[in-house]
Amino acid sequence: MVGLGAAAGMALGDPPADYASIAAVGLFVALMCVCIVVGHLLEENRWMNESTTALFIGLGTGAVILFASSGKHSRVLLFSEDLFFIYLLPPIIFNAGFQVKKKQFFRNFITITLFGAVGTLISFTVISLGALGLISRLDIGALELGDYLALGAIFSATDSVLSQDETPFLYSLVFGEGVVNDATSVVLFNAIQNFDLGNINTSKLLKFIGSFLYLFSTSTILGVAAGLLSAYIIKKLYFGRHSTDREVSIMMLMAYLSYMLAELLDLSGILTVFFCGIVMSHYTWHNVTESSRVTTKHAFATLSFIAETFLFLYVGMDALDIEKWKIVGQTYSPVKSVALSSTILALVLVARAAFVFPLSLLSNLTKKTPAGKISFKQQVIVWWAGLMRGAVSIALAYNKFTRSGHTQQPSNAIMITSTISVVLFSTIVFGLLTKPLIRLLIPPRHLSREPSALSEPSSPKSFLEHLAANSPGHPDLENGISLRRPASLRLLLVSPSQSVHHYWRKFDDGFMRPVFGGRGFVPFVPGSPTESSMPLLAGNEN
Amino acid sequence: MVGLGAAAGMALGDPPADYASIAAVGLFVALMCVCIVVGHLLEENRWMNESTTALFIGLGTGAVILFASSGKHSRVLLFSEDLFFIYLLPPIIFNAGFQVKKKQFFRNFITITLFGAVGTLISFTVISLGALGLISRLDIGALELGDYLALGAIFSATDSVLSQDETPFLYSLVFGEGVVNDATSVVLFNAIQNFDLGNINTSKLLKFIGSFLYLFSTSTILGVAAGLLSAYIIKKLYFGRHSTDREVSIMMLMAYLSYMLAELLDLSGILTVFFCGIVMSHYTWHNVTESSRVTTKHAFATLSFIAETFLFLYVGMDALDIEKWKIVGQTYSPVKSVALSSTILALVLVARAAFVFPLSLLSNLTKKTPAGKISFKQQVIVWWAGLMRGAVSIALAYNKFTRSGHTQQPSNAIMITSTISVVLFSTIVFGLLTKPLIRLLIPPRHLSREPSALSEPSSPKSFLEHLAANSPGHPDLENGISLRRPASLRLLLVSPSQSVHHYWRKFDDGFMRPVFGGRGFVPFVPGSPTESSMPLLAGNEN
Repeated sequence: MVGLGAAAGMALGDPPADYASIAAVGLFVALMCVCIVVGHLLEENRWMNESTTALFIGLGTGAVILFASSGKHSRVLLFSEDLFFIYLLPPIIFNAGFQVKKKQFFRNFITITLFGAVGTLISFTVISLGALGLISRLDIGALELGDYLALGAIFSATDSVLSQDETPFLYSLVFGEGVVNDATSVVLFNAIQNFDLGNINTSKLLKFIGSFLYLFSTSTILGVAAGLLSAYIIKKLYFGRHSTDREVSIMMLMAYLSYMLAELLDLSGILTVFFCGIVMSHYTWHNVTESSRVTTKHAFATLSFIAETFLFLYVGMDALDIEKWKIVGQTYSPVKSVALSSTILALVLVARAAFVFPLSLLSNLTKKTPAGKISFKQQVIVWWAGLMRGAVSIALAYNKFTRSGHTQQPSNAIMITSTISVVLFSTIVFGLLTKPLIRLLIPPRHLSREPSALSEPSSPKSFLEHLAANSPGHPDLENGISLRRPASLRLLLVSPSQSVHHYWRKFDDGFMRPVFGGRGFVPFVPGSPTESSMPLLAGNEN
Repeated sequence: MVGLGAAAGMALGDPPADYASIAAVGLFVALMCVCIVVGHLLEENRWMNESTTALFIGLGTGAVILFASSGKHSRVLLFSEDLFFIYLLPPIIFNAGFQVKKKQFFRNFITITLFGAVGTLISFTVISLGALGLISRLDIGALELGDYLALGAIFSATDSVLSQDETPFLYSLVFGEGVVNDATSVVLFNAIQNFDLGNINTSKLLKFIGSFLYLFSTSTILGVAAGLLSAYIIKKLYFGRHSTDREVSIMMLMAYLSYMLAELLDLSGILTVFFCGIVMSHYTWHNVTESSRVTTKHAFATLSFIAETFLFLYVGMDALDIEKWKIVGQTYSPVKSVALSSTILALVLVARAAFVFPLSLLSNLTKKTPAGKISFKQQVIVWWAGLMRGAVSIALAYNKFTRSGHTQQPSNAIMITSTISVVLFSTIVFGLLTKPLIRLLIPPRHLSREPSALSEPSSPKSFLEHLAANSPGHPDLENGISLRRPASLRLLLVSPSQSVHHYWRKFDDGFMRPVFGGRGFVPFVPGSPTESSMPLLAGNEN
């Protein structure tokens, strides 16, 4: 059984001094420090963001290594989808769930699921059909139906770069869509790999959709269960009385365990760990000591930040890997390479438009008040902000078109180089234009000026708090529905989604919080830092 | 260049679903959760501690796996010294430096270095000579001089289990010794591996001692430099104004970078990262925002805690690995195995006594006041608390006597099984008896009852604070020298080590803190959480 131990042995030298590997890891750590400092200095710049900075530094380093090794290679670490899916993605997605503004997320839950699941399926269909129609004419080589479908799944995985603080409503929409979309793309991709493409019929298709829904619900349930278990353990054992380290460890390990378990059970780890994060911030987070709250909030954000920076650096360095470019250059003309990448980019643009505008219309039809509707300008931003393709696309492309990161077949090599081109182009060009586009469509005075969520010690906010308070944002951006605790009957007439919230709140207060803890339901322990340092929370216990 | 990526690929399946490996990692994560909960429940127990709990759970799981696999194997991950030295050890040692009570550590610096460096050399000599004299009579097989010397280095690496809160003076002594000792053993071990043992002469020996001192000082300087660099970067760029995540990331990455750099330069990463931790807690920690302080303190402690739990679990599971026991069982009689392990244990007991008591006497001779002296009872505790052998010994033994964790040669296999036996016996028997022994030698009323350092938001404490305040502990345990800021001349006459402190303080206040920040020297930023939430610190700025 080859385990992690053997892996580390491979990585860092079985004779204890495999300097090349230690040097590679050291170089990455040093570059990440540079990214953080440079990203900080460029923060005031309206064009750049941390991801593009890391991408540029990765590209630059790749170029230097390529030059130093006389054109032999540009990377010090081989791209591995497992490193990505097992170590880098879980902290990013978990933190997303943990820090997400739950009010916005759940208020727009239906729209988000519509965009993330149905939208991704539409995007997948459009790109697959487009690839079948257009790329087959480019005469790339032996591509099968499965390859075209894989392209559809690969380029349906988005990578958004909106800022949560400036555009909370749109952020929750695009970001929430992104998580569901990642899960959908990965599930789709794996389904295609295992699917018998020879004879497709209606019953098979229905079975496919059925297993898709099954995956979705079981993954969510597993994540929720893991989160509730952690809340229950910490509430029952009063970890806080003893040790912050234990509480933080338990939260970290349980979240990771839920991801691993989901992967083991062939579910979607991404969805599981996302919902685990949401449940942990709603229940578990309120059961721990004050210092554990501050620590988890920032430690999870830091781990996610490090994983993201590492990822973009990695993608940037890998992009210049000469092996695949050489194979492509020997077989195809540059015109053909550019044509392929442009075709894919065009398909990406069309496929996203094909679901954002119709589904926005559909979503608007269900809303009674104008505040809940997505304006045309907002639709354009949603369309644009999800055009970026990122690490998920690269990881899936490597899985499909290489073996252990290497490829010799020209038609596979050109798929990899095209994927890299599309990712770089969309991240850099589309990504850089996102900030100016938002400023153009929605003038800065309309952007809400909330203090940064990160410096606010009381966020991971709870449901109740959000439901009870009015949203302070501008109606152009904020989905600010007035909610002054009306009678439940009136609520039911006004909006079905608000009444769902109302009954959920009753259930939450009546059953969930007394069992699993949460804001205002933490048992009183004399001298516990929870009670003494947060009088606001203690006063809510009714 | 085979890198981390390839390694993760190896570990978690190149076809993306290597379930065995995901299951192995998942099992470990689940077991760690169990260890934390069980360790919490057993905390009131005077015999058990977290390490022995993890060791027992590891042994139990190993037995279950051995049974389930019909006696084929007991482990799900192969022991890898690289996993240990590159991923598990750095967070443990860094956190040790970060959280160490610097007053105690530096006040006993000379004694600690004496014990850690000279003591380890004495222990190494005694064990090597003893092994040469005794083990050669057991007729184990073809052992060379290098093997005996390696045994000396392997069994000189201690693994202490004292509690910092109950016995701060002894803890700082034994723990500080442990860090210096680990570094010394590893340096010694590597030196032996590369040393031409054919012809030893005085000039070679002097050269060896010279390179040893060179390693020691350069490693320390590198760690201090990395710590100061992080302090300077954070002070100059005011990371706090922007993002806690960036501050925490920079501290984490710079610490890790210092370790990697030390390993790359063939220095001692253990010493480097330890001093980096000390400098970071003295300067950098005071330059960051309040939430970064809480986060780093607990996040580093949590990472160290997770690494330690993982380690003991790992050692416990690996101990039952059947392959080596079978080879040993086929070649040697059980009596011979027991004889070898007992001989090593006896050598460990004698070798530690051979330096603790003489060096304590030497240390006591340099102290003028009775408070600074180590009483005989304390000497017994210091002797006993350093008898445990742990993961460093196992890692070094695997390095010397196996290839990638496997061995076929009986004489090598018996060395591994003996090492495991000694580690298990010393950790469980000696470890379990430590708490009762301390209670026997020093009655509980004498134990200082400080609140736990972990729940106190203002620790990582600074030098100045410690020097200015009187130590509140009992003189039997605490090194409570009265320090009411006397004139420097009087200080110089009273004790040279105190005057060193005095001049260091002057230098620290006059140059170091204004440049690198630190308590009371953080520039005032209006509205910065540093100033507003910690009025105690702001008042100190003079």
